[in-house]
Amino acid sequence: MATGQTRKRRRRSATLDHNAALWAHVEPESSRLLLLSALDAFLARGFHAATTREIGERAGMSPAAVYVHWKAKSDLLFEISRTGHQAVLDVVEEALAQASDDPVERVSSFVSAFATWHADNHALARVIQYEFKKLPRRQFRQIVEIRDRFEDLMHEELAGGVAAGVFEVADLEGTTLAVLSLCIDLARWYQPSPAHSSAEAIGELYADLVIRMLRPVN
Amino acid sequence: MATGQTRKRRRRSATLDHNAALWAHVEPESSRLLLLSALDAFLARGFHAATTREIGERAGMSPAAVYVHWKAKSDLLFEISRTGHQAVLDVVEEALAQASDDPVERVSSFVSAFATWHADNHALARVIQYEFKKLPRRQFRQIVEIRDRFEDLMHEELAGGVAAGVFEVADLEGTTLAVLSLCIDLARWYQPSPAHSSAEAIGELYADLVIRMLRPVN
Repeated sequence: MATGQTRKRRRRSATLDHNAALWAHVEPESSRLLLLSALDAFLARGFHAATTREIGERAGMSPAAVYVHWKAKSDLLFEISRTGHQAVLDVVEEALAQASDDPVERVSSFVSAFATWHADNHALARVIQYEFKKLPRRQFRQIVEIRDRFEDLMHEELAGGVAAGVFEVADLEGTTLAVLSLCIDLARWYQPSPAHSSAEAIGELYADLVIRMLRPVN
Repeated sequence: MATGQTRKRRRRSATLDHNAALWAHVEPESSRLLLLSALDAFLARGFHAATTREIGERAGMSPAAVYVHWKAKSDLLFEISRTGHQAVLDVVEEALAQASDDPVERVSSFVSAFATWHADNHALARVIQYEFKKLPRRQFRQIVEIRDRFEDLMHEELAGGVAAGVFEVADLEGTTLAVLSLCIDLARWYQPSPAHSSAEAIGELYADLVIRMLRPVN
């Protein structure tokens, strides 16, 4: 049904196209195209500046199309934020599930997966990390709940390593935030380019830097 | 002259008020009030969403006041970005000037000053770190030149420590970016609150974490 519309729509940024599989659950196709268009518009101009008119037109649809498929612009941001946060949580939980009991291996896997995801999905990551604060209160709270999971998981892994005598951490809360923060900031500056390492290489570098932060100082 | 206007203007965020001294060079006062209003509007709604009308009205002036004092909205962002970047560069250069030749002391001072500034000035830091990419090309290039100085300075300090045998760094470029990135991301999440340490305590924690990243692994 949306074939003509699909053909007409403005070209989406290539950086976002590889996230397309994340939104396969959004039906019908018109709703999904509007969501991808919204993601693009939020990335280019920010949530407040992106109008529903622009989102509809970027999707090759009418200026009012958003309101046919979505109740509000913020519902688009919520769906993007929810799915994006869940995707990176899945990646981290999978990495931890595959790791042995060794604290070094567990934290390395966590950091490597978390950093690589933020570099690899830097465009989506930028939208979910910087725009979710603009969500209405109830939706904002739901995203914060997912975000708290990352802190809980990292805190648990660091505390586990301290208990096992493998890590030495003076400030567990501060270090938990610092480690996550280091990885999240990749969304701000990372671009695949000859000047930067691959997302995977950055993941490995960051795992190494973080393990060094945690090792007892002799 | 602008007293009536000053009284009428909307209350600026307290988080921005302590940066006021940074803009003392902006004359006349009306230009400065518009700049503070723009800073507030860019922080709340983003550069693209903040209109010149809104900036004028937030300053308690007419909707067209911006164009009386400034050539374009982007000139306000440029002045904010230039002054903000220069302020943190001054802080870092001062910290390095005060430090001895010891690589640990130099990098600690750098990181501590850079991190503390980003926590302490998180509102201004958020605007200058996230919005400068929206500047017109020529102004953008000028800001990138200041930004390159931070990379050059950190690279030089790390390389100096490696040459002195005090640091062991496998990837000098990647580690330079990681260290700066860790500090810059404070702008995204830091809020003074009972749940977070003071800006100075975070500066000390980060200096410690970074030195651990750099020390030879025994």
